[in-house]
Amino acid sequence: MDDAIQILVIHGPNLNLLGKREPSVYGNQTLDSVNLGLKQLAEKLHVRCDFYQSNVEGHIVDAVQQALGTYQGILINPAAYTHTSVAIRDAIAAVNLPTVEAHLSNIHCREAFRHHSYIAPVAIGQISGFGAESYFLGLQALVSYLRSQ
Amino acid sequence: MDDAIQILVIHGPNLNLLGKREPSVYGNQTLDSVNLGLKQLAEKLHVRCDFYQSNVEGHIVDAVQQALGTYQGILINPAAYTHTSVAIRDAIAAVNLPTVEAHLSNIHCREAFRHHSYIAPVAIGQISGFGAESYFLGLQALVSYLRSQ
Amino acid sequence: MDDAIQILVIHGPNLNLLGKREPSVYGNQTLDSVNLGLKQLAEKLHVRCDFYQSNVEGHIVDAVQQALGTYQGILINPAAYTHTSVAIRDAIAAVNLPTVEAHLSNIHCREAFRHHSYIAPVAIGQISGFGAESYFLGLQALVSYLRSQ
Amino acid sequence: MDDAIQILVIHGPNLNLLGKREPSVYGNQTLDSVNLGLKQLAEKLHVRCDFYQSNVEGHIVDAVQQALGTYQGILINPAAYTHTSVAIRDAIAAVNLPTVEAHLSNIHCREAFRHHSYIAPVAIGQISGFGAESYFLGLQALVSYLRSQ
Amino acid sequence: MDDAIQILVIHGPNLNLLGKREPSVYGNQTLDSVNLGLKQLAEKLHVRCDFYQSNVEGHIVDAVQQALGTYQGILINPAAYTHTSVAIRDAIAAVNLPTVEAHLSNIHCREAFRHHSYIAPVAIGQISGFGAESYFLGLQALVSYLRSQ
Amino acid sequence: MDDAIQILVIHGPNLNLLGKREPSVYGNQTLDSVNLGLKQLAEKLHVRCDFYQSNVEGHIVDAVQQALGTYQGILINPAAYTHTSVAIRDAIAAVNLPTVEAHLSNIHCREAFRHHSYIAPVAIGQISGFGAESYFLGLQALVSYLRSQ
Amino acid sequence: MDDAIQILVIHGPNLNLLGKREPSVYGNQTLDSVNLGLKQLAEKLHVRCDFYQSNVEGHIVDAVQQALGTYQGILINPAAYTHTSVAIRDAIAAVNLPTVEAHLSNIHCREAFRHHSYIAPVAIGQISGFGAESYFLGLQALVSYLRSQ
Amino acid sequence: MDDAIQILVIHGPNLNLLGKREPSVYGNQTLDSVNLGLKQLAEKLHVRCDFYQSNVEGHIVDAVQQALGTYQGILINPAAYTHTSVAIRDAIAAVNLPTVEAHLSNIHCREAFRHHSYIAPVAIGQISGFGAESYFLGLQALVSYLRSQ
Amino acid sequence: MDDAIQILVIHGPNLNLLGKREPSVYGNQTLDSVNLGLKQLAEKLHVRCDFYQSNVEGHIVDAVQQALGTYQGILINPAAYTHTSVAIRDAIAAVNLPTVEAHLSNIHCREAFRHHSYIAPVAIGQISGFGAESYFLGLQALVSYLRSQ
Amino acid sequence: MDDAIQILVIHGPNLNLLGKREPSVYGNQTLDSVNLGLKQLAEKLHVRCDFYQSNVEGHIVDAVQQALGTYQGILINPAAYTHTSVAIRDAIAAVNLPTVEAHLSNIHCREAFRHHSYIAPVAIGQISGFGAESYFLGLQALVSYLRSQ
Amino acid sequence: MDDAIQILVIHGPNLNLLGKREPSVYGNQTLDSVNLGLKQLAEKLHVRCDFYQSNVEGHIVDAVQQALGTYQGILINPAAYTHTSVAIRDAIAAVNLPTVEAHLSNIHCREAFRHHSYIAPVAIGQISGFGAESYFLGLQALVSYLRSQ
Amino acid sequence: MDDAIQILVIHGPNLNLLGKREPSVYGNQTLDSVNLGLKQLAEKLHVRCDFYQSNVEGHIVDAVQQALGTYQGILINPAAYTHTSVAIRDAIAAVNLPTVEAHLSNIHCREAFRHHSYIAPVAIGQISGFGAESYFLGLQALVSYLRSQ
Repeated sequence: MDDAIQILVIHGPNLNLLGKREPSVYGNQTLDSVNLGLKQLAEKLHVRCDFYQSNVEGHIVDAVQQALGTYQGILINPAAYTHTSVAIRDAIAAVNLPTVEAHLSNIHCREAFRHHSYIAPVAIGQISGFGAESYFLGLQALVSYLRSQ
Repeated sequence: MDDAIQILVIHGPNLNLLGKREPSVYGNQTLDSVNLGLKQLAEKLHVRCDFYQSNVEGHIVDAVQQALGTYQGILINPAAYTHTSVAIRDAIAAVNLPTVEAHLSNIHCREAFRHHSYIAPVAIGQISGFGAESYFLGLQALVSYLRSQ
Repeated sequence: MDDAIQILVIHGPNLNLLGKREPSVYGNQTLDSVNLGLKQLAEKLHVRCDFYQSNVEGHIVDAVQQALGTYQGILINPAAYTHTSVAIRDAIAAVNLPTVEAHLSNIHCREAFRHHSYIAPVAIGQISGFGAESYFLGLQALVSYLRSQ
Repeated sequence: MDDAIQILVIHGPNLNLLGKREPSVYGNQTLDSVNLGLKQLAEKLHVRCDFYQSNVEGHIVDAVQQALGTYQGILINPAAYTHTSVAIRDAIAAVNLPTVEAHLSNIHCREAFRHHSYIAPVAIGQISGFGAESYFLGLQALVSYLRSQ
Repeated sequence: MDDAIQILVIHGPNLNLLGKREPSVYGNQTLDSVNLGLKQLAEKLHVRCDFYQSNVEGHIVDAVQQALGTYQGILINPAAYTHTSVAIRDAIAAVNLPTVEAHLSNIHCREAFRHHSYIAPVAIGQISGFGAESYFLGLQALVSYLRSQ
Repeated sequence: MDDAIQILVIHGPNLNLLGKREPSVYGNQTLDSVNLGLKQLAEKLHVRCDFYQSNVEGHIVDAVQQALGTYQGILINPAAYTHTSVAIRDAIAAVNLPTVEAHLSNIHCREAFRHHSYIAPVAIGQISGFGAESYFLGLQALVSYLRSQ
Repeated sequence: MDDAIQILVIHGPNLNLLGKREPSVYGNQTLDSVNLGLKQLAEKLHVRCDFYQSNVEGHIVDAVQQALGTYQGILINPAAYTHTSVAIRDAIAAVNLPTVEAHLSNIHCREAFRHHSYIAPVAIGQISGFGAESYFLGLQALVSYLRSQ
Repeated sequence: MDDAIQILVIHGPNLNLLGKREPSVYGNQTLDSVNLGLKQLAEKLHVRCDFYQSNVEGHIVDAVQQALGTYQGILINPAAYTHTSVAIRDAIAAVNLPTVEAHLSNIHCREAFRHHSYIAPVAIGQISGFGAESYFLGLQALVSYLRSQ
Repeated sequence: MDDAIQILVIHGPNLNLLGKREPSVYGNQTLDSVNLGLKQLAEKLHVRCDFYQSNVEGHIVDAVQQALGTYQGILINPAAYTHTSVAIRDAIAAVNLPTVEAHLSNIHCREAFRHHSYIAPVAIGQISGFGAESYFLGLQALVSYLRSQ
Repeated sequence: MDDAIQILVIHGPNLNLLGKREPSVYGNQTLDSVNLGLKQLAEKLHVRCDFYQSNVEGHIVDAVQQALGTYQGILINPAAYTHTSVAIRDAIAAVNLPTVEAHLSNIHCREAFRHHSYIAPVAIGQISGFGAESYFLGLQALVSYLRSQ
Repeated sequence: MDDAIQILVIHGPNLNLLGKREPSVYGNQTLDSVNLGLKQLAEKLHVRCDFYQSNVEGHIVDAVQQALGTYQGILINPAAYTHTSVAIRDAIAAVNLPTVEAHLSNIHCREAFRHHSYIAPVAIGQISGFGAESYFLGLQALVSYLRSQ
Repeated sequence: MDDAIQILVIHGPNLNLLGKREPSVYGNQTLDSVNLGLKQLAEKLHVRCDFYQSNVEGHIVDAVQQALGTYQGILINPAAYTHTSVAIRDAIAAVNLPTVEAHLSNIHCREAFRHHSYIAPVAIGQISGFGAESYFLGLQALVSYLRSQ
């Protein structure tokens, strides 16, 4: 039954600072409060989710790889690695777990180099611009997708 | 009180064919069933939403303009005009209503000319890749945004 | 039997001026005389063809959509929209009717922005440079294609 | 004699909102007051001018075509279609009426996609950056041009 | 009288393999059967046509040059040399014989480097995407053009 | 009172040849007659204007700098330096005097390198294509602007 | 004597999944079996080789640096870091050990961003497209090179 | 049995000068000694190989075409034609024989125009930078590939 | 008082090899001797500085984040990550500590990909080309900046 | 002995306005006070320096040429000519005097056309972003360099 | 002694038509008369020259290769192959004979693709725009160069 | 009669240093000796020539303008201004005197920004790469051209 669905939430570089720095860009919520919100939403959706944050590209690659066997889907905010990491893209393609990409800010309103995502073409879909809400929408989207398969 | 929130949902060109053609790209739901789904979700969220579809760029500009005064937010899937219409962008910027951009398919997996959106920089955020679910997530995101202001 | 084949001929923006303006670029034939020529050729080929002209991109999208069910193929000169309309391209892809793209002038001898066609990748083929003859060759090509299926 | 000169003034998409929205970009004058100003200037210059506004690209193409026979020149602010419409360009080239392009804002200070004009190469000249004054200067320029021929 | 019209048909590199290899891309007809078809069509049109195929760019240049004096027009499928040969372009420009460019496949649906033609700007027109039919339409177009001069 | 308004008119390189060379591009008026026309218009507008021409980029920089304190606005035709001079742009930005950019010819109809202006982003607005009339319109525009402040 | 030759084999990110995921792209062999094959080939060639795999760019930089003094050459499949890592390139240039770059898949048949290698210009040579065989050929090439010095 | 495997080795333009000119770039071995080395290796691998060199692009196209029926694979160093020949690419795609591309020098260390190969996307794989050794590795790779099918 | 100023000096990838490899590019000083020089200069300037070197992008992100609260400024030579790391840029922007970017070599004389810095736009300033002296100048600049605030 | 070192300091266009205009970009110091600061620093360093400012590109070329024989090094802020002057670059390369390039503002935070320097590749190094301090650091760097030769 | 100098003059594709076609572009002289003029000039300069023309790229490669041993220099008008032939460039680099590139027309006034030459970087120099005179100047330049060595 | 032909020779920036600096790039001849050589050649050709050198772009513009009436042709080495001066190009186009562009070095072998010439499209032809000989050939070419008119 559905409680069996487990989601890995991955936060990319600098997201550990969330709510502490640059609130005008990223909002006031801390990463812990985002994770709490996700946990509560997960319960409501009858799924489980675990959390991982790292500033190291290769450790995110490790986390994606290790998701296989334990998790049925990945919710990822690759942050800066969105625009530079072929390695994370390859990891997602390799494990082939349904993945949703979420961004706090509207990346299309920022510098040109943030308009391109290496991750998007291997994700189911992308959500950007809604602050912490982007994560919550992403979790819903992922669960819907997994249940519709 | 909140029931006062009214949302205009705008569907761009060729979306009237939804569910009738190319199901492998756009899914099986018709536009009517998407609208019904949105209506039901709106009720659950205690807001109202109306619908508009057109294949004519200028009529979508008209619709955006006329939203002013009646609606507090716009949920738009600009479809093909995403990539070519400065006029719709200007209309959204002019009326300055909070706008969420939704796409059925993951535009980052398609032709290169679909990777760029003229609309995104004037929207709050963008959701793409989840089929009809993109609309439902978009409505939620828009309502959350409006309530948080 | 073959008389059942019906073709919709679509003329894009400014083609209503044909033969009246810029004869050095577009020749002396009016659109009516082109249509008459197409009608006569259609008879010879034992098919029927109807005609539609509009300066409004969205109305051409409408026309392409409505072709479904009535017509087995489309002969289109998208004129200026060749180079700017993703919406017409999407309409043709959506209805999935065999489509031939015709141009009066040789678009490769004109301004660089006219060298690219959004329509060509969703058409069977493209004919350009032969004046009104481009339409006649296009009709032949379309009928041959439909009969060979 | 000169009173015979008639000018068609065409306002592109979203200009019907003039003076009502985004005054920091487009100024405080409404379209009606701009038109009134043009009418008064026209009288002073002993010419007549009529006005047309549309948000639909194809209707602007229609208007340009129908100018032929009635008007001796066109004053156009193509607004958003400046940057995307080959169809309006082709219409102007086809009717071959002297045309002046006017812009309220200095398009060279805005987003990069606003630096290019499809219309300018078929216009006599371009005036941008002076708010409503751009129209008034444009009318003068057009009348001078017509009288000098 | 018209029987005097003689056309040289030039087939570019690898077309000698026609019908033998990659039928999914190029169809099942052999070059001989295409030539036979062209011969029969030529008779019907009361013209004569001769055939030349070579894999060597320079020999095609030779053939174009030697056409002068004997042929009144050239029907050419430059195949791979479409995209790389300035020499063939210069030869066609030099002899100044009316030339029609034909392609079996729709070059706009293939790799990006096949979208550009060095030959098109010196040809009357271009026909692509209709298989062997592209040649037949091309012959018709060329004969029409020659007769209309 | 308004007679206090003083304008510096700066003519860029090669404009001393005006009316003497290439009349098909630049018209028949000499620079002296343009200056006379500007003087007369200035009188009518109750302002004063002085004139400066140089072929040396750095001397135009000097002139712009020295305008400060004496002049309230600058009317400049930077000619060739429009497309290459960051130094003149920086001078205009530094003195921060309202500046109007005028061009005799329609720069959008000429070589691609003439489509870009380093000056436009620091000017109020740009007028191009009306021959000597461009200057007259520019003076009007500048005076209107100064009076509206 | 030759047994003194020691080679460090470095496998980049996601290669630990080799043979476990996406066999259609990367083949069925596991990394262990590739390493075993390399070990056997090394014995036949009378050299020794050690192995290192990491998903962390910086750890690969460490490994390259530490090769100095122990190894005479490096055989590296930088995988995703081929296309994004200047740091690994700089490490190879710094230690100046003869390095051969090997790829399982033909990177020229994949996405455009995989056509460029930051590593190739500092390697002796590059081998791509032969699956695990690419490694074996690379080891041979490296040993030949070292013996020829 | 395996002795039945026959390989055609094709050397592109200027390779007849091998070992005679520019030894710093291409090494000291002559083409004859390379061919001898290949012959000896072929014997060791129990296959046969024949050799062809030409400076004429079209003759290399001929050679590729004629390989069909006699040879099971092609080892090609297209030299300068690597970067300019769509015709050779099309020939290889047409005959569909497994092909390995070899380069003496590391093309990624040379001029930018040598970084792109038209041939690589239709080859199994590419080997560059090892001098004559590139050929020997290429022959091995090709034989392995053929035996694994 | 001023002794309270504490600076974190961060050395990017491969800088641990300083003075040991490629002296022609990077000079003869080791990283230890550079650090000693910085320490001595710091004393002279009455500030303190600590040192961090890592080859791992994410660990440099960690170091930048952890500087907050302890250090008032950062002196960083991001080495290879200058050109590829959005993550380090985002970390510097997030902690918002005054940062000076220093490079040993003149990056404008090296490969084109080294001309662009992701770090420079979030730094106060950049110093490149003076060998170890770049660090010493950078420390001075940073201290001056901090004292001037 | 060292007092023999003489440095020419060259200030490019518009720097004569320093401290008088746009203090938010360029700071409050006048050019005279910068020069005074440099003179004092020079004394402390036991060298001499002279100053030159011009708005004319060619006069800066003259100054660079005439430095030969009198000065041992050049400290230059080419200002706007940084981005447009090949002539100044060629002059520096021709006289081959050690040259340091200094910028008041961080050119990497400004318009894209200011990111490229024609001068940097012929300078020893570049310092930007520290206001007048950039000059002082530049003088130190230049003297250190000259003393180390 | 000097009479020993022998020059090979190579004429590229379509130059056999010289004087017969497109005199407005290439002038009225035939290739024979150009060669005669060269022969007479050669006598005057006490050198000998032979001539070769081909439309086949590979045959020109052959001719360049065979020049070695017989000729001391090459005068080449590569015509269309100027812009497309890496093979001829490689041949010239390989034989390392001093080579002068001559063009009848000013290639900088023609289509953009004619502005780039693959040959120029391996030639001593380039002369274009003087009709047959380009050859004569080229021969002089080559002889001067050879005599100065 | 022919002695009436007068040529103005213009030397661009830094050419006054000729023979004094960078002999490896520009040769050993001084500008005076080049001018002497030109004078002697002029005598032999029965024409007169005068000389002008400046480092100031605008003064070269002046010189070109003043050539009108006195000189029948211009021989110019625009040096650095070749690549940056639209003003000199416009001056040459304005006076419409036959102009030959000469370069000492082969600009196609140097930095990419030196491959483009603003002057070439308004010159008769261009000669580069032959040292001082480029001037002598240029003078001959110019005189031939003038005599052939």
